[in-house]
Amino acid sequence: MSHPLFERHRALLDQALKAIAERGYWSAFPESPSPKVYGEGAADAGKAAFDALANKPFPISLPATVGTVGGERSPYGIALGVTYPRVDLDRLFAAIAIAEKSWRKAGPEAWVGVCLEILARINKRSFEIAHAIMHTTGQAFVMSFQAGGPHAQDRGLEAVAYAWDEMRRIPASAYWEKPQGKNEPLKMEKRYAIVPRGVALVIGCNTFPTWNGYPGMFASLATGNAVVVKPHPNAILPLAITVAIAREVLGEAGFDPNVVTLVAHSADDDTAQTLALRPEIKLIDFTGSSAHGSWLEHNARQAQVYAEKAGVNQIIIDSADDFAGAARNIAFSLALYTGQMCTAPQNIYVPRDGIETGDAHLSFDQVAQGLGAAIQKLVGDPARAVEILGAVVNDGVAERIHAARSLGAVVHDSQAIVHPQFPGARIATPLLVKLDAADGAKYLQEWFGPIAFVIATDDTAQSLDIARRAVVDHGALTLSLYSKRPEVIERGIALAEDAGVALSINLTGGVFVNQSAAFSDYHGTGANPAANAALTDSAFVAGRFRVVQHRMHVAAAPQ
Amino acid sequence: MSHPLFERHRALLDQALKAIAERGYWSAFPESPSPKVYGEGAADAGKAAFDALANKPFPISLPATVGTVGGERSPYGIALGVTYPRVDLDRLFAAIAIAEKSWRKAGPEAWVGVCLEILARINKRSFEIAHAIMHTTGQAFVMSFQAGGPHAQDRGLEAVAYAWDEMRRIPASAYWEKPQGKNEPLKMEKRYAIVPRGVALVIGCNTFPTWNGYPGMFASLATGNAVVVKPHPNAILPLAITVAIAREVLGEAGFDPNVVTLVAHSADDDTAQTLALRPEIKLIDFTGSSAHGSWLEHNARQAQVYAEKAGVNQIIIDSADDFAGAARNIAFSLALYTGQMCTAPQNIYVPRDGIETGDAHLSFDQVAQGLGAAIQKLVGDPARAVEILGAVVNDGVAERIHAARSLGAVVHDSQAIVHPQFPGARIATPLLVKLDAADGAKYLQEWFGPIAFVIATDDTAQSLDIARRAVVDHGALTLSLYSKRPEVIERGIALAEDAGVALSINLTGGVFVNQSAAFSDYHGTGANPAANAALTDSAFVAGRFRVVQHRMHVAAAPQ
Repeated sequence: MSHPLFERHRALLDQALKAIAERGYWSAFPESPSPKVYGEGAADAGKAAFDALANKPFPISLPATVGTVGGERSPYGIALGVTYPRVDLDRLFAAIAIAEKSWRKAGPEAWVGVCLEILARINKRSFEIAHAIMHTTGQAFVMSFQAGGPHAQDRGLEAVAYAWDEMRRIPASAYWEKPQGKNEPLKMEKRYAIVPRGVALVIGCNTFPTWNGYPGMFASLATGNAVVVKPHPNAILPLAITVAIAREVLGEAGFDPNVVTLVAHSADDDTAQTLALRPEIKLIDFTGSSAHGSWLEHNARQAQVYAEKAGVNQIIIDSADDFAGAARNIAFSLALYTGQMCTAPQNIYVPRDGIETGDAHLSFDQVAQGLGAAIQKLVGDPARAVEILGAVVNDGVAERIHAARSLGAVVHDSQAIVHPQFPGARIATPLLVKLDAADGAKYLQEWFGPIAFVIATDDTAQSLDIARRAVVDHGALTLSLYSKRPEVIERGIALAEDAGVALSINLTGGVFVNQSAAFSDYHGTGANPAANAALTDSAFVAGRFRVVQHRMHVAAAPQ
Repeated sequence: MSHPLFERHRALLDQALKAIAERGYWSAFPESPSPKVYGEGAADAGKAAFDALANKPFPISLPATVGTVGGERSPYGIALGVTYPRVDLDRLFAAIAIAEKSWRKAGPEAWVGVCLEILARINKRSFEIAHAIMHTTGQAFVMSFQAGGPHAQDRGLEAVAYAWDEMRRIPASAYWEKPQGKNEPLKMEKRYAIVPRGVALVIGCNTFPTWNGYPGMFASLATGNAVVVKPHPNAILPLAITVAIAREVLGEAGFDPNVVTLVAHSADDDTAQTLALRPEIKLIDFTGSSAHGSWLEHNARQAQVYAEKAGVNQIIIDSADDFAGAARNIAFSLALYTGQMCTAPQNIYVPRDGIETGDAHLSFDQVAQGLGAAIQKLVGDPARAVEILGAVVNDGVAERIHAARSLGAVVHDSQAIVHPQFPGARIATPLLVKLDAADGAKYLQEWFGPIAFVIATDDTAQSLDIARRAVVDHGALTLSLYSKRPEVIERGIALAEDAGVALSINLTGGVFVNQSAAFSDYHGTGANPAANAALTDSAFVAGRFRVVQHRMHVAAAPQ
């Protein structure tokens, strides 16, 4: 009894299942915004669709609306002017309770089929969503398109594939016949129903509303849960479009659209907390600050909380065959989206006696200067720089840049750049400050934004030791190591596995430590304080449903 | 690079994997204590081995010992006189930290191979363990053998199979090649290490130390975690034997035996709490009271807690083709091990206007009397009764029987029986009391022991409604329904799936609602307050390990 949407996307699902089993390169949704891929006129049509949303109520019809909310302002200096329905939570949950009745009973193939159709339609609106991402997060356009569009869609599909992979292994029924010696055997038929946990809450973040939001949203929806999406007040639009598409697909498939709802709210109210403590909410996916994440873990006890929080990402430079390549690669990782990524490196440990490279010994200061020069070369041309940097997402980042300048000797100062097209945008290049290993009080905390420290250590052994403790005590999503020495690489791998952080080794080309690829790279490990879950593994999906069985005697095995 | 113990038990593991995928009848460890199965003399040898343990220090060498502990007294009236090492926790964890180093790195095949060898050796000592179960829990011998031996071993194997099934799906490495248009593709090798969470704690219970203890113990050990076993102070011996076997296998396989340790303690100290809050403890498996389980969930925040707590198990009688068979089946479920099972039924809802049976209408009182008569018939012969009832495990059960007598009209009173072989044993037959649906304050709580209520309801609709609310509000591990009407059965199934409880329908033969079969029946659902996990599903194992990856550029795909 398969569902038509499941059949429509079955081939794609099978490819995704193969991809998560093999973890080589695979992508379902092309990252190139080329007209050859997305069609002639797709880019213009997407821009026009985005422009048409400005300065009016967002076209979505939600239950239990009591006025409007919304005041997103683009980091590029434009007020979006979009408003969203404000919903009354009690009445919203009453509507969800009605909607989830038939959804819960629809079963895995319907849940997965609907999710795959939603993703396919989201993909078709990648250009529109890219502009929404750009003007809520401050990402440059190409990154908005790629990370907020196809890469986020791939992460959503990955979650659906994992969910299906778990659910498909539970048989719908079994015939159980237990021998009783010379007596008639005991014969039973057993049936196993996959039952969702309840209502799921997705708490979106400001910087990656779709990339960080889709995994939890689709993992919960694909396992039969109703989903409430609560965007960050500064990044509502990308998730509002997503929810509108989901509701459209649900309605067309004969389900109540209130299976997926949107709770937009303003920054100064307590909607996030109130929502998280609702007894109906059994699953919460959160990306954001450690304070908020820990609050959820301690207070939303009725729910399973999947939280990605802050951390301290690190690079250990021991030696390098190609220091120029390493410096270029690191500079890009620091500059990309103004370092406003949970995966961006912050602490760069370099022995104070310097390092061996392919052709020469470089002193600590030469390494620091080399990194500074690579940053300057990358961001020296403003027109090119803004396409890497994007815009500063909020005042907090600007304030941290200012505060970090006085922590030590500045190797590369953060500069303001005027955006050629968006004069109102606040653009900042990376700040690189020299510190000493003894300055732990300064660098052993997250400085979210384009702020990095090049830190003099006694030797690589000390670098490894500091890095290990930082991961265990403060959390980390990424760790990077540069070394020519196999024994150091072995020690780096041991550190990573012991402390529980993903490691990139000798990145000098077109792969960057702050980027993780769906279907191949796990984002987060769940093994250190930066996140209690990984995107995506079995543990991320297996707890989102339960199995409820019933059994009865039968005369014989069913035919 | 397979492990010899993995290869030795590979065929058994493959059978277990097939069993969890199909969920039909399968058992690895024969439940029959017959000499044809376990060998001539096995029973006598096991009894002798048990007898040899009495009145001396238990033969186990643990690190960090500081004296002894132990004062188990058999519910059959005999003081065991066995003492166990008392350990200093700080020094114990220092020893575990050393032991876990090589264990964590050994990898899934070693972890699983060692677990399977431990289970095989436990099975060989089933008779000895059965006597230990009997004289700590009060179960009758055959039940001690079956539930505490082969059935518990099957549950342990099931957990190992689930753990392996999750781990085997993670590739050790992947080659990732991303096209770059006309440029050289990006080429990386990625390696994925399965990393255990930390140290696991298993908190044993008084009534089913092995059956409830093995799933968590083996799930954690099979995923590379060190395991600390903390038995209930009244039921140390079965788990002490288990730990001794595990340590023996670990040592023979070249691992530090301190990968598995025993923390025996006395009932009046706070060892359980102190242990549970240790920062090293990342996984806790608990079976016991709701108060203790909730305390763990709220306080042991550094750990993932898998808790099975109390609940209210129920039977709904709507109608019955074979009322005599139903009554016999229910009577056995009430009497088995004196109702001292987390799965034993307590509340029996019957319409006050009576029920239709195969041949007649029975009034409410006739149904109640029929149940009482079936109980009396079952336990009327003391010699036979004691082999079903076993002994009262502790004073709490006796006190509850006394208190429950005054709740309503007694249909079948609990009688004291003298055990032919063990005059010091306290034997109690089931108490059946009549109540009304309005008496919720009396019956909507767990009365652990041989205490059941036959409750008059307005009709089956009210029975279903009360049952649903009881599951949602108070939790339940089992629900049973008797009905001739397909529409009532449909409603019962809907109730079970909605409230999240396993349902048995029209049990009249040799399957009882309080028994669940490994590899086929899920024990608990994790979907109601009685348990936050099920034995066993993916969710029970997937969070016990993490995946840590590293990646580096390569020139080409590895050959």
